Amino acid sequence: MAGGSAAASALSNPWRTLLQRALDANAHLKHSTFFQLATVGGGSRPANRTVVFRGFQEHCDKIQINTDARSNKISEIKEWPLGEICWYFTDSWEQFRISGIIDVIDGSNSDPTKLQQREKAWFASSVKSRSQYLGPCPGVPVANDDHIKDVHLDPSAGPVDAYCLLTLDPEKVDYVNLKSNQRLMFTRRQEGEESSDWMAEKVSP
Amino acid sequence: MAGGSAAASALSNPWRTLLQRALDANAHLKHSTFFQLATVGGGSRPANRTVVFRGFQEHCDKIQINTDARSNKISEIKEWPLGEICWYFTDSWEQFRISGIIDVIDGSNSDPTKLQQREKAWFASSVKSRSQYLGPCPGVPVANDDHIKDVHLDPSAGPVDAYCLLTLDPEKVDYVNLKSNQRLMFTRRQEGEESSDWMAEKVSP
Repeated sequence: MAGGSAAASALSNPWRTLLQRALDANAHLKHSTFFQLATVGGGSRPANRTVVFRGFQEHCDKIQINTDARSNKISEIKEWPLGEICWYFTDSWEQFRISGIIDVIDGSNSDPTKLQQREKAWFASSVKSRSQYLGPCPGVPVANDDHIKDVHLDPSAGPVDAYCLLTLDPEKVDYVNLKSNQRLMFTRRQEGEESSDWMAEKVSP
Repeated sequence: MAGGSAAASALSNPWRTLLQRALDANAHLKHSTFFQLATVGGGSRPANRTVVFRGFQEHCDKIQINTDARSNKISEIKEWPLGEICWYFTDSWEQFRISGIIDVIDGSNSDPTKLQQREKAWFASSVKSRSQYLGPCPGVPVANDDHIKDVHLDPSAGPVDAYCLLTLDPEKVDYVNLKSNQRLMFTRRQEGEESSDWMAEKVSP
């Protein structure tokens, strides 16, 4: 999922080099691509859930996450688009805390480029993963087990309404390695679509 | 860490029965007691970090976490004491999202009972874990590697100033099992120090 373009961009970005190394070192673990995304919901309540890393958007550092447009977090993120990812690698004992602004790209988005990105991310998922979006609305009470229905999805069909792509644009990355007891703080100095300038500072763990 | 009292109380609390089962099923993994704690910091920014489960407080459902009183999160939590734990069990594919109010118990606390709890939690940690609080202030820039100094801690000495106990008092627990594709939402109905009444509802994942 963190494919060729990710590796290429990582060269110009110090924390992505570390992240790519962590992904490689933990690749034998299915959960190595899982992280926790914290956002702020109604009444300024913190919300936190496990999501799956779907790679970086091409030519930039934006982190892609697939989600259900019907889940609570979508309206919450539209209201307050800040997020912090906490990504702990259980084998190499490394933690990346990545904070930034989240963009919600659902089917109603007016930007054709973003709709293309959504379509691309949709087809990059497995058919099994895609068919989840045909299930019942998440978080709604279920009477019995009658919600477990067979769903059929045409593998060539484009994104369904319930499919939503989130992208988190990193502004700060707090990296700690618990084996070497080293901590690095990366701060983005310059904003830009194609490239960013990152400042690194060594801090106490 | 989730000892006898935890198991005993779990009988009267449906989500603690599930949590105890998950802890047992994943006990062979060191990281099974690690979870991510989300809080809200200055400027309503979400913050998220990995912390270690230090068991339940006796006779109640409060979740104990050790932390450094000098870290940013302490002033942030004092300002806004809401938290959400996201606890993902990598072997059994279960997630617990536990939200509630956090109590900060540092050495300046005026409640003698809470100071006793802090002392008890201090001695329940390993000497190695305790000696971390003698290190430099977390997050402060370091010039070279001169911060790696040998620290000596008297194993019989009580909690140092930098040691802080956090307790999170759960109000809502969102449980999902990704193997059975079942999700349960637990909501606390009644507040009380010693016992709580929990309502459970089956919702779609």
